[in-house]
Amino acid sequence: MSLLTVGTVAFDSIQTPFGKAEKVIGGACTYISWAASYFTEHIYLVSIVGDDFPNDELEALKQRGINLDGLEIVKNGKTFFWEGKYHDDMNNRDTLVTDLNVLDDFDPLLPEAARSAKYVMLGNLTPSIQAQVLDQLDGSQRLIALDTMNFWMDIAMDELRSVISRVDLLTINDEEARQLSGEKSLVKAAQAINNMGPKYLVIKKGEHGALLFQSDDMFYAPAMPLAQVYDPTGAGDTFAGGLMGYLDNTDDISMDNMKRAIIAGSAMASFCVEDFSLNKLKSISYDEIKDRMKCFRELMYFDMI
Amino acid sequence: MSLLTVGTVAFDSIQTPFGKAEKVIGGACTYISWAASYFTEHIYLVSIVGDDFPNDELEALKQRGINLDGLEIVKNGKTFFWEGKYHDDMNNRDTLVTDLNVLDDFDPLLPEAARSAKYVMLGNLTPSIQAQVLDQLDGSQRLIALDTMNFWMDIAMDELRSVISRVDLLTINDEEARQLSGEKSLVKAAQAINNMGPKYLVIKKGEHGALLFQSDDMFYAPAMPLAQVYDPTGAGDTFAGGLMGYLDNTDDISMDNMKRAIIAGSAMASFCVEDFSLNKLKSISYDEIKDRMKCFRELMYFDMI
Repeated sequence: MSLLTVGTVAFDSIQTPFGKAEKVIGGACTYISWAASYFTEHIYLVSIVGDDFPNDELEALKQRGINLDGLEIVKNGKTFFWEGKYHDDMNNRDTLVTDLNVLDDFDPLLPEAARSAKYVMLGNLTPSIQAQVLDQLDGSQRLIALDTMNFWMDIAMDELRSVISRVDLLTINDEEARQLSGEKSLVKAAQAINNMGPKYLVIKKGEHGALLFQSDDMFYAPAMPLAQVYDPTGAGDTFAGGLMGYLDNTDDISMDNMKRAIIAGSAMASFCVEDFSLNKLKSISYDEIKDRMKCFRELMYFDMI
Repeated sequence: MSLLTVGTVAFDSIQTPFGKAEKVIGGACTYISWAASYFTEHIYLVSIVGDDFPNDELEALKQRGINLDGLEIVKNGKTFFWEGKYHDDMNNRDTLVTDLNVLDDFDPLLPEAARSAKYVMLGNLTPSIQAQVLDQLDGSQRLIALDTMNFWMDIAMDELRSVISRVDLLTINDEEARQLSGEKSLVKAAQAINNMGPKYLVIKKGEHGALLFQSDDMFYAPAMPLAQVYDPTGAGDTFAGGLMGYLDNTDDISMDNMKRAIIAGSAMASFCVEDFSLNKLKSISYDEIKDRMKCFRELMYFDMI
């Protein structure tokens, strides 16, 4: 199969209670692609950077089998920059700086081969840009997933609702699910969002895990309790990357397999937070991922008698 | 087997986004005993009330097989009263009124038969009162559990640490685990608390579920996502009651059975929040509890391939 990911590639500066990282590699598309690359070899990355973006990072992506034909490199342009500071509880953060730079002119153009990608992951972007990507697909997709955030609900709800109606899976956090649906209960929110179009809803709860809804079925995956969490940046995107990579690899969107995909995503996210930027994600092996998935099994398994 | 519960019996006035309940029955010991009574028939309730506490509520407890020999009824006394208001997210609340009333003179005296109870659940109380209860036990207990809160960590940490060192299982929330241990990671907090004495630690995360730690083993039970949550009051105590009732019934404190007990507690808590006060807890059947436990199994189960 093949996976198309569209979203940001960025520089991040991050402060957490455990340290600082200045102008390190970030961006939704970067995390998604790296995480997915452990499960599938056919990934199209569509994004935009300035020519200040390090070439060796692009080479590293290519070596993971990630096709960069859809990555626009703007001459004399500056790459999107985000700076944030995490609170002590690491589940909340303040954005200190957002410099859109080249992202302001992002006009995604899909390479021909990417238009028939079977799986598509749209990272958090302006809903109209996400719609532009959907317009370029050839209609043969097995599953299209979309990530978004409260910011777009505040300023572009109509465009957002329109693009949500065209996708199969939506990933948002619990507060966003409540805002989008107007329902306090996540169960009712899931029903309302299901009626908006997406067959699957994944509610990301950060350190509290993730919930998958598909009509009346629910599945809950906790976040792995870890001895050390250094940096939660990119955990949600890494989760989505693991999830979509697993689906692309197995090409099975039954609820049973979606559950395993959620666990694959949770395992990848649990690695992501153990170091700054992509440091940990770049250094793991597939065996470690399988072992981490088994740890999730142990964390959640009980026998009825 | 037999279960001893010591804690408050109270009147509560509650405001949630879904309504108000004025001077309804509450108190940790009440919730614990009602929840446990679905699993075990030998329960000793030790608490204190004024003679303003309704007799039919005491009769209802007796009819559940709950022994009230250790319940002191103070003539012309007023029962402990708590008033609270929940925020929109229902996971946070403000205390508006706390009238200790007769609780100010609570000097628990265990009935002779209760001193050899195999399972003991100490509800949240002044640590010195909890210690007084431990002093009266005959030493034959299989498992002693203790609930506490940040308030005692703020004003009586030494007494609290002393009583914690004498119990087998501690139930607190995630922020309290961090405060008690001085560790940000819950994994490290669990290790530190294990070193303080308790073999088992249960971290209650409200709508995000509960985590069980026993040395290197961890188990995560989510809270059941529900279409309607009316009132979270007593959910933590109901969880503890279900947990301890299940343990008393099965008399098996292996990690495997502790996991089932956590699910039993989670199932009871999921009923508790579906109505104000004890309304729902009083009206369920054991079959409904078994069905709810199966729902947890479905919520958490996935097959590895």
